[in-house]
Amino acid sequence: MKRVIIDTDTAGDDTIAILMALHHFQVEGVMITGGNVQFAQEVENALYTIEVAGKGGQVPVFKGHETPILQLGKSQHRTVEDVHGSDGMGGANFPLAKQRPEQEHAVDFFIRKIHENPGEMSVLAIAPLTNIAMAMKKDPTIVPKIKEIFIMGGTNNYLGNITPAAEYNFYVDPEAARIVLHSGVPMTMVGWEMCTQYSVMDDADHADIEQLQTKGSDFFVAVNTVVKAFNKEVHRLNGTTHPDTLLMAIAADEAIMAKSNDYYVDIETKGELTRGYSLVDINGRLAHPANVRVCELVDRERFKAALIDCLAAIN
Amino acid sequence: MKRVIIDTDTAGDDTIAILMALHHFQVEGVMITGGNVQFAQEVENALYTIEVAGKGGQVPVFKGHETPILQLGKSQHRTVEDVHGSDGMGGANFPLAKQRPEQEHAVDFFIRKIHENPGEMSVLAIAPLTNIAMAMKKDPTIVPKIKEIFIMGGTNNYLGNITPAAEYNFYVDPEAARIVLHSGVPMTMVGWEMCTQYSVMDDADHADIEQLQTKGSDFFVAVNTVVKAFNKEVHRLNGTTHPDTLLMAIAADEAIMAKSNDYYVDIETKGELTRGYSLVDINGRLAHPANVRVCELVDRERFKAALIDCLAAIN
Amino acid sequence: MKRVIIDTDTAGDDTIAILMALHHFQVEGVMITGGNVQFAQEVENALYTIEVAGKGGQVPVFKGHETPILQLGKSQHRTVEDVHGSDGMGGANFPLAKQRPEQEHAVDFFIRKIHENPGEMSVLAIAPLTNIAMAMKKDPTIVPKIKEIFIMGGTNNYLGNITPAAEYNFYVDPEAARIVLHSGVPMTMVGWEMCTQYSVMDDADHADIEQLQTKGSDFFVAVNTVVKAFNKEVHRLNGTTHPDTLLMAIAADEAIMAKSNDYYVDIETKGELTRGYSLVDINGRLAHPANVRVCELVDRERFKAALIDCLAAIN
Amino acid sequence: MKRVIIDTDTAGDDTIAILMALHHFQVEGVMITGGNVQFAQEVENALYTIEVAGKGGQVPVFKGHETPILQLGKSQHRTVEDVHGSDGMGGANFPLAKQRPEQEHAVDFFIRKIHENPGEMSVLAIAPLTNIAMAMKKDPTIVPKIKEIFIMGGTNNYLGNITPAAEYNFYVDPEAARIVLHSGVPMTMVGWEMCTQYSVMDDADHADIEQLQTKGSDFFVAVNTVVKAFNKEVHRLNGTTHPDTLLMAIAADEAIMAKSNDYYVDIETKGELTRGYSLVDINGRLAHPANVRVCELVDRERFKAALIDCLAAIN
Ligand SMILES: [Ca+2]
Ligand SMILES: [Ca+2]
Ligand SMILES: [Ca+2]
Ligand SMILES: [Ca+2]
Repeated sequence: MKRVIIDTDTAGDDTIAILMALHHFQVEGVMITGGNVQFAQEVENALYTIEVAGKGGQVPVFKGHETPILQLGKSQHRTVEDVHGSDGMGGANFPLAKQRPEQEHAVDFFIRKIHENPGEMSVLAIAPLTNIAMAMKKDPTIVPKIKEIFIMGGTNNYLGNITPAAEYNFYVDPEAARIVLHSGVPMTMVGWEMCTQYSVMDDADHADIEQLQTKGSDFFVAVNTVVKAFNKEVHRLNGTTHPDTLLMAIAADEAIMAKSNDYYVDIETKGELTRGYSLVDINGRLAHPANVRVCELVDRERFKAALIDCLAAIN
Repeated sequence: MKRVIIDTDTAGDDTIAILMALHHFQVEGVMITGGNVQFAQEVENALYTIEVAGKGGQVPVFKGHETPILQLGKSQHRTVEDVHGSDGMGGANFPLAKQRPEQEHAVDFFIRKIHENPGEMSVLAIAPLTNIAMAMKKDPTIVPKIKEIFIMGGTNNYLGNITPAAEYNFYVDPEAARIVLHSGVPMTMVGWEMCTQYSVMDDADHADIEQLQTKGSDFFVAVNTVVKAFNKEVHRLNGTTHPDTLLMAIAADEAIMAKSNDYYVDIETKGELTRGYSLVDINGRLAHPANVRVCELVDRERFKAALIDCLAAIN
Repeated sequence: MKRVIIDTDTAGDDTIAILMALHHFQVEGVMITGGNVQFAQEVENALYTIEVAGKGGQVPVFKGHETPILQLGKSQHRTVEDVHGSDGMGGANFPLAKQRPEQEHAVDFFIRKIHENPGEMSVLAIAPLTNIAMAMKKDPTIVPKIKEIFIMGGTNNYLGNITPAAEYNFYVDPEAARIVLHSGVPMTMVGWEMCTQYSVMDDADHADIEQLQTKGSDFFVAVNTVVKAFNKEVHRLNGTTHPDTLLMAIAADEAIMAKSNDYYVDIETKGELTRGYSLVDINGRLAHPANVRVCELVDRERFKAALIDCLAAIN
Repeated sequence: MKRVIIDTDTAGDDTIAILMALHHFQVEGVMITGGNVQFAQEVENALYTIEVAGKGGQVPVFKGHETPILQLGKSQHRTVEDVHGSDGMGGANFPLAKQRPEQEHAVDFFIRKIHENPGEMSVLAIAPLTNIAMAMKKDPTIVPKIKEIFIMGGTNNYLGNITPAAEYNFYVDPEAARIVLHSGVPMTMVGWEMCTQYSVMDDADHADIEQLQTKGSDFFVAVNTVVKAFNKEVHRLNGTTHPDTLLMAIAADEAIMAKSNDYYVDIETKGELTRGYSLVDINGRLAHPANVRVCELVDRERFKAALIDCLAAIN
């Protein structure tokens, strides 16, 4: 069983992704980073999700960086309550979980865990990459000891979601993304376009899920209420999107990634229109060595089956 | 019959595009701008192409800006002899045409022509937009008198050709592209991805063209020798690409543009990785009014038929 | 007698500078560029100033670029009516001059004049460098035929005036400044700090000027009303500033430039805080060849004497 | 007695600055950050300097960030062995000190120390601001508990030292400088121009110091050998520069800062020529509230006296 550390800005699909991870992996820590919604809410969402999975108290949650690396003073990065609801959970306003977060900072947990288990830990990153980048900067000696990182983020020559040029996780902290992508750790990137092309659950899919009538499926329905409406209006998508869950499913079963290739990937941090843009050099025009395995095709049915298996199992 | 002005950095596919334009339109002037290959060679290529079309001496050719707006001193922009051959004509080294270029600068010709024919002239832009932008800056009163501009340039959320982030024409002079795109003139953009997806002529297509055995088809074969090899190696395309010719075909027969939409389009001029990137705000995330009609689908068979008709007619 | 072309955004001190130039040089043309105030007003200001100098109808005025190179569509660059009064003439609202501007565009006049008089013409630039840069881009063959350019613009490692990092002329069109500075033409730059350190005319100086009681001195008093108040409030300067006049005085009598050195000078066009900043590499840290002679010290008394001579002579 | 934390990239003048700090303050920790020379060498230089001051084993030294925040992978920031000698100590190659660095990371020490002593600790920053910025990002709740920061860095509208536009400490990690400057902590900045204008020790000054014939003066002579030659060649300065020592002297005796003002200060992080440029908005053109007290004049004799007092006392 893969030993993993999750880094999440828990809201919306992050929760289902955490369920998926808890279903498949030995999750040794969940780190929270600033992103989707208010930080304290993200922490609660992660704790509650662990409880939903029946693992309350068994998986430690660590608070990390609340803001992107370059955010100044009291300024605030762009959160997306419009996508996920005010609580990031479709407005469900779940009760507080019993489990409380750890005292240790996520960055210190990460550094310690990697050193204690060299070559053992897989990292599942479904949020801005602030925590992971900051850990690598604080202690660069962890880098060769990280087994692999799966990243939900960026786009592969495709329309972004938060701006036309950028996907949310890379947009919020492009400098962090750049640090991580150039670290040399073996890395797999699942971009936003994989999500919109292969992870959308439409009305029929939702019906399939609802009829499971498990605690897992009920939770799924609740957290996906707001995003469904948002997707219809903004992304012209008929259904819910599951980028983070897809990332977890691929980490658990690489056959879901029907096609991938190794490319040079870099992040624009200077542009006026393109901050957070992920360059994926498919044709090798820049002649840099590949640093990322990029997911290019998803076996949608296999992904849906994985999702249903997971939600069915949670009861 | 549409009255048109062509702006071209004549090499490779520009030549076939000029043939196509001469076939369909009343071409009242051909302006040369710095781009694909050495400027003087571009001028000769345009003159020779007009001769091939049997219109030698009937269509004036004007020399314009040799370098992008912001190019400094004796520095040189990136030319692409690797794509089009040393002469930009597949290495055919055709003889000099009899017709010589005009004395009037392209920018002055453009300003004069537009003022003399307000609302009458369509502009067919198949090169970096330096000349057109500089004309608009020198005399902004021409802007409302330009009927429309068809632009081959940019990408619509797709891989670029000269860098991963940018298409050649916009990359060479992004500032010019930005000036033109924000001018307010009715505008149609055909991006590089339309070309790679729908304009590629493969071996079977080339066979169809070769058997025409006209002066037009012979010329087509000659100028496409080098680009065929280049496409296989760099763009992983099996065949020749015809962005400029596609632009002309669409201007002549809009039904070839099977689908289009009006979007806000802007150009990155500041990025480190993304200079010349064309942002196309498909989902309206930036909430700016649309400024460009963007071609989203091409009727490939109709395009091929238009190409064959044109080459067949030149003999 | 030096044969000169003036490029000006005529308002405030530009007028006195034009008087100074008409006093010393054979002025063969005055080009107007977008800058200080509304363009049409600048044109009138130049025409009126020529009339004040008693040269109405003898020195042609050419309208040039109304906006900086990269200014888009209908957007407007920053004008400074707060510095110079609504009419750019201290609110004097002078009558229209009899002389009217020429039909020829300033850029075309410039190109023609330089070609007709290779190595003969000195250029006196006291405005954003848009016209001169655009002429160099339209016809690069003029570059080696320009004798020299005197530029009022930039700062030499000193506080700017329009932003902390930039002087107005370079700030309004930094791309133009960059093109001109890298052209290879012999060039002298008089920065804003020369003006604030050595060209300020205080109350005593104004008294000396007023008592001349010439048409020239009356005009001087009128156009300097608003800037005097502005300088006190914004630049903490007690008196009026005369950057453009100083430039002319130095061009007329280089002994006024008590010290100068050749340095590598470049312009920042990308910065977030530093657009238009002029880098002057005094210690040669960048190891680029010098491209500009930079004025480093002014003989203030000699300058004042030149100013008084000029104003005394206009009656 | 001020309780202080020093952050240093110990080489050259940092050592004398540490001596000065140990002479005047209760130094509760010395943090090392990547900067002047190889990181491990900086650590040794700090330890040795503490030994020279006779405080070996009494002042803990903490290793912090070895590289600027945004430095990627195995790339290396610009070090300046040319200024300070290969060992950063004028090539003296001193023996290793007996004291060894602490295990705790500088960032964690800093956060802990500030929380343990709210409102008590002054920070004396004479290096790139990486450690302090990273501490503020890791735990923003320390910010209101920091008493004050004295920063040697930037320039106040003056020529830089590492590039024409930037001073070394801000150039190496401009993002860190920006984070610290916008933190809201009371802050005093002593720029490079204070150093070149008022801290230079010329041959006569060196003679005065040498004749002290203390352990302190011998050490001063040794570490300043290389920089003396460098200054003559590059900065055209006849003598040695003491920016870090000046900073310490001012922190110890504010009367040495003969004049200062509160200004808005910001750092350019995007420019092509101006990375690390410190904007100091003396005239309030940007209308932002002041965030930094900027030293504008130094009582040179008082500074020299302080330096001599300190070196005399070390024996
Ligand atoms: Ca997420
Ligand atoms: Ca072309
Ligand atoms: Ca002016
Ligand atoms: Ca230092």
